[in-house]
Amino acid sequence: MEITINYKPIGILKTPFNTTVGMPIQPTESNVSVGMIILDEPLVEGLVDLDGFSHITLLYHLHEVSDYKLTVIPFIDNKPHGIFATRAPVRPNAIGISTVKLLSISGNVLHIEGVDMLNDTPLLDIKPFYPQYDNRLNTRSGWLEAIDSNEFKNIKSDNRFNK
Amino acid sequence: MEITINYKPIGILKTPFNTTVGMPIQPTESNVSVGMIILDEPLVEGLVDLDGFSHITLLYHLHEVSDYKLTVIPFIDNKPHGIFATRAPVRPNAIGISTVKLLSISGNVLHIEGVDMLNDTPLLDIKPFYPQYDNRLNTRSGWLEAIDSNEFKNIKSDNRFNK
Repeated sequence: MEITINYKPIGILKTPFNTTVGMPIQPTESNVSVGMIILDEPLVEGLVDLDGFSHITLLYHLHEVSDYKLTVIPFIDNKPHGIFATRAPVRPNAIGISTVKLLSISGNVLHIEGVDMLNDTPLLDIKPFYPQYDNRLNTRSGWLEAIDSNEFKNIKSDNRFNK
Repeated sequence: MEITINYKPIGILKTPFNTTVGMPIQPTESNVSVGMIILDEPLVEGLVDLDGFSHITLLYHLHEVSDYKLTVIPFIDNKPHGIFATRAPVRPNAIGISTVKLLSISGNVLHIEGVDMLNDTPLLDIKPFYPQYDNRLNTRSGWLEAIDSNEFKNIKSDNRFNK
């Protein structure tokens, strides 16, 4: 399609990770990493009632990605896969998703746990996590089923997808 | 933040819904609705190995949303909530998420089930659904916990968020 879609960040993500090297590869592999959302002040009204949710799903712009690849070797495998069959960041539209724990909200600052993105990542959206909408049981997971997920805790991001 | 982020659709979503009126409000409330992704031809290589996944998460542009609201009354309640505590479409960045069943892939066409978006919606990304990354147990769901979720099947979208 020829159209271009424009978004403006609603805030910024502060995390302990100033480089992709050693960064967790997913929130579920990053339980101890805390961070903050600094929401743009004029949007604070949009947070009303969010504090009742234990988890929130963040959409953000993978701002260090400059180009995409259609075939990648992801962090947790040594075989190539199509980009849409992976979570690798070098996607045609570099949008990341992470569901994190919401610890507290104080004005325009949200304290969160389970961050797996770079410091100063531009935030695009916050959605409440709701199990009835978001969980799926009885799934098949293709190539990922062949990977021993107990190994994931030991796998960190590296610089393979950097500029 | 002052920056603007530009994305180009990777394809288009074909669904039975040409108007928001009567459209399902979530994929989980839309089990019988089938649709198609028409992926841009040059991106087909990115689908390799996706066929092993039973579910995929779609990110898409809510193209009929022209402005945002910070406080909304969502379809499933009669009380106002902050936009970030809801899934309502009138968000500062109008990005939708839906996890759907992947039925089959044929070239650049993906047949899917559980669609809850308008026909001709521009698609931004396809991610494989992976329970270990995406499911969350032991959650709290704020105002949504007070709603009888058995009622959801009877609730459809209407025109409250239309232009």
